[in-house]
Amino acid sequence: MRQHKLALCRNHFPDWILEQTQRFIDKYKMFTKEQKILVAVSGGKDSLALWDVLQKLGYQTGGLHINLGIQSEENYSNLSQQITQAFANKRGLTLHIENIEEKYGCSTPQLSHLASRGKDKPCAVCGLVKRHTMNEIASVYNYDVLTTGHNLDDEVAVLFNNVLSWQVDFLKRQSPVLPAKVGLLKKAKPFCRFYEKETAAYAILNGIEYIEEECPHVMGSTTLHHKELLNALENKSAGSKLAFYLKFLKAKESLFLNLDENLAPHDLLFTCPNCGQPTPQPGNCTFCKVIQKATLKLAE
Amino acid sequence: MRQHKLALCRNHFPDWILEQTQRFIDKYKMFTKEQKILVAVSGGKDSLALWDVLQKLGYQTGGLHINLGIQSEENYSNLSQQITQAFANKRGLTLHIENIEEKYGCSTPQLSHLASRGKDKPCAVCGLVKRHTMNEIASVYNYDVLTTGHNLDDEVAVLFNNVLSWQVDFLKRQSPVLPAKVGLLKKAKPFCRFYEKETAAYAILNGIEYIEEECPHVMGSTTLHHKELLNALENKSAGSKLAFYLKFLKAKESLFLNLDENLAPHDLLFTCPNCGQPTPQPGNCTFCKVIQKATLKLAE
Repeated sequence: MRQHKLALCRNHFPDWILEQTQRFIDKYKMFTKEQKILVAVSGGKDSLALWDVLQKLGYQTGGLHINLGIQSEENYSNLSQQITQAFANKRGLTLHIENIEEKYGCSTPQLSHLASRGKDKPCAVCGLVKRHTMNEIASVYNYDVLTTGHNLDDEVAVLFNNVLSWQVDFLKRQSPVLPAKVGLLKKAKPFCRFYEKETAAYAILNGIEYIEEECPHVMGSTTLHHKELLNALENKSAGSKLAFYLKFLKAKESLFLNLDENLAPHDLLFTCPNCGQPTPQPGNCTFCKVIQKATLKLAE
Repeated sequence: MRQHKLALCRNHFPDWILEQTQRFIDKYKMFTKEQKILVAVSGGKDSLALWDVLQKLGYQTGGLHINLGIQSEENYSNLSQQITQAFANKRGLTLHIENIEEKYGCSTPQLSHLASRGKDKPCAVCGLVKRHTMNEIASVYNYDVLTTGHNLDDEVAVLFNNVLSWQVDFLKRQSPVLPAKVGLLKKAKPFCRFYEKETAAYAILNGIEYIEEECPHVMGSTTLHHKELLNALENKSAGSKLAFYLKFLKAKESLFLNLDENLAPHDLLFTCPNCGQPTPQPGNCTFCKVIQKATLKLAE
């Protein structure tokens, strides 16, 4: 690992991942062993590795897999679900499965298509569906904290995107841990300081089977292009990504210290009368509007 | 110009450059027609184009060319000086020429070599020499404002570098115009919103002869690599660089509003007892220390 000037063998590397994860959980005050942790598991290497690590560290976890109904040659969503179920069964872990098509009458890409008249990529609606469902399941089953498998490469791509457009509100919110708000769960990203190749190596060394296919909708996305640029930066100078992220977290303290958190326009000050989740505007939340719009279109 | 969704012919393009420059000068309150403007001219397209534009707009200008004593196959520094002199002579403009080797007994690369024991690239010392000399000449000849030909590509590369390392002090200071401080001239960059290809097109359309060779020390620099990445970004999405820069200028207003300008560690609170220019530490300034160190080494 050039970025850490560290070389570890196949026996010590997984231990290092466990130790470092524990260190990040403590450092950013993510959660404790007394709390119930919901792990969002897509079936990819990051989320399954995270669940594996949290189990080994002795945390009380449950998994949530959302079947988004995304089709591909390899049947992306159904294969993801199978892999996730196999992982949970093998270890005897609690897994909640939510199937969007069964629940709402159409898949996530269909929801997006119906709600946006087919103009947009489904990624925005997909994010909305995932956020809503994670929050809902956490509330129904009394979880204290939601964790996701976002790795350093993911975080840095988001940071880069927010910096390019100088979205101060989004920059303020980007953090290894987001505190709970009324109606919203606390969120934590214990893998946010691991490079993607580190989580992949962990998954492989631990014999974790994961879905290697990328979501077919990711192809050609801005995020993917930004990741390529950031990889070029990292290749030129090992450790660039980690430095970019850690120096951002440090700079945030001085940059945003004096900004009033409550003045952010994206703050969730209202409650959706339909689903009860928080929303930045009065009236139904965006998720419920999308579902209602799609349902109406389907009935036409 | 894809970034502006604008196409101009060879007759209207130079007029557009003049109008836009005037607009930027006014918008950022850079200088007025009553003030004496010192234009730092390297002999490259940007600085010569800037001088040409400021003359055409009716500003009172003088040029400053610093012969840094940089060698190359094409004799970089001497050729730069010849080209700059030819430009000024043809137009009957005042040009101040400072020759570092004649003034201090050794060239800028030698100064750097002697002061840093040959370890570093000469770029840091070169920046120091240029800043000192520009400030000195402006003071001797009573100029009110210093202008440099930095274009959007230059500004964006600096911004990118400062963002990657989250140098809050440097981010605070990056601006189209820097106000005067005790002992320090006001500085302005009237071309900061023009793409490099725009200033190059202006120079070519106006028959301005400029040195095409890049400084030989630029090769392999981090800035050059960052410029390549930013070009990839721009190629993917026209206007990315301009948006990145303009949104930064806007975000700065809210980000840095509450930070006390005087708390910045790089503030120049002292006066060098040797040259009289401001310095962040008591005692001789870095420029004078470099000269003294190099002079001692030469005498050994």
